[in-house]
Amino acid sequence: MPTDGEQASFELGIKFGALFHQFIGTPVSESSAKSLETAIEESIENQPHCESVAVTIDREVLAGDVGPYGYTGLAGRHLNVDVVVSKDGRRAEGSMQMVDGYPLMTLDAVE
Amino acid sequence: MPTDGEQASFELGIKFGALFHQFIGTPVSESSAKSLETAIEESIENQPHCESVAVTIDREVLAGDVGPYGYTGLAGRHLNVDVVVSKDGRRAEGSMQMVDGYPLMTLDAVE
Amino acid sequence: MPTDGEQASFELGIKFGALFHQFIGTPVSESSAKSLETAIEESIENQPHCESVAVTIDREVLAGDVGPYGYTGLAGRHLNVDVVVSKDGRRAEGSMQMVDGYPLMTLDAVE
Amino acid sequence: MPTDGEQASFELGIKFGALFHQFIGTPVSESSAKSLETAIEESIENQPHCESVAVTIDREVLAGDVGPYGYTGLAGRHLNVDVVVSKDGRRAEGSMQMVDGYPLMTLDAVE
Repeated sequence: MPTDGEQASFELGIKFGALFHQFIGTPVSESSAKSLETAIEESIENQPHCESVAVTIDREVLAGDVGPYGYTGLAGRHLNVDVVVSKDGRRAEGSMQMVDGYPLMTLDAVE
Repeated sequence: MPTDGEQASFELGIKFGALFHQFIGTPVSESSAKSLETAIEESIENQPHCESVAVTIDREVLAGDVGPYGYTGLAGRHLNVDVVVSKDGRRAEGSMQMVDGYPLMTLDAVE
Repeated sequence: MPTDGEQASFELGIKFGALFHQFIGTPVSESSAKSLETAIEESIENQPHCESVAVTIDREVLAGDVGPYGYTGLAGRHLNVDVVVSKDGRRAEGSMQMVDGYPLMTLDAVE
Repeated sequence: MPTDGEQASFELGIKFGALFHQFIGTPVSESSAKSLETAIEESIENQPHCESVAVTIDREVLAGDVGPYGYTGLAGRHLNVDVVVSKDGRRAEGSMQMVDGYPLMTLDAVE
């Protein structure tokens, strides 16, 4: 049987996969970034055992991607994400950041 | 060559296909519905030639779908959508509503 | 009332918006590109009035995006798409190609 | 520091969240289900540490959902999924099935 720490880690992974693949490609601009951050956070926080989700869309990176039409599609390179889940007394924390051009999702701590 | 009215209608169709397939499946609850409505509207309004997007998530239908975990995935049956695009002097208006269990997208007027 | 040509153009736009926003971000590599092309085509061809969908994932562009992990997320720059819809005797044809870093969707002909 | 078993469980969770939120809503019919199953499997298998993905779209449930237009959007209730990941010598196995109307993702074993 998986341990409680493994169960919490599995739940955390689900949140990262869901967040990324639900919202990647969403049209986003500097003026709409704030409402998208909020919607992503509140959406993923609905999922079971999810304690908190913090999403920041990097406005500088975003500004560099916005071309002649004034917007771009949300990409991994725009996102900084922290998620905490809590299940059966164990708390798992993870984050997402760009490494080698990939949006690397990491399990930072299980308490 | 396509007419200006056909071009505006094509642009309008893009917005409906994009809106539906980007956001369907997003975890949503009665408490997060408002932020999701706003994010969908502001996101799609970024697209070229898009004048306005109005999204209402039907709270009654949503409440009926929310099960033991307190949320569900956004589905066509939750959505009422109106979109207006304007291109080369022509304005196309469309809407989305449920017909026969399908989220039917309709072109309502081209002016 | 919208004309038949406008209705066909609207339907065509829906297919492009749906195709792009459903599949963007899908993990793809040179070895999985073929099955993804087929699935996208067969999926969108299910939609009402859709006569044909032809999708090519540019293997050269894809190869340039595949990093140390051997895959990337499907992006507009990988895609060449042709779609034909037919409704009430009118046929609308469109295509998608990269222009100024955007996946530009164009209405090519209404017959 | 998280254990190797927790790391493998986290990676497995990512695959389930990604698979579900990338493909939910995809237009699907009895004739296109096979190509969609294959594309989902080959797509998610691209992700780091992913050993195998097996996807079955339940044709009976699908047939019940296909209405007058001959297709529906892919939903959790259509899917049976098994995924295995392997990382740093630990193997995590999970599955997805419907429980209480939710597509429940479960961590079945960590070896």
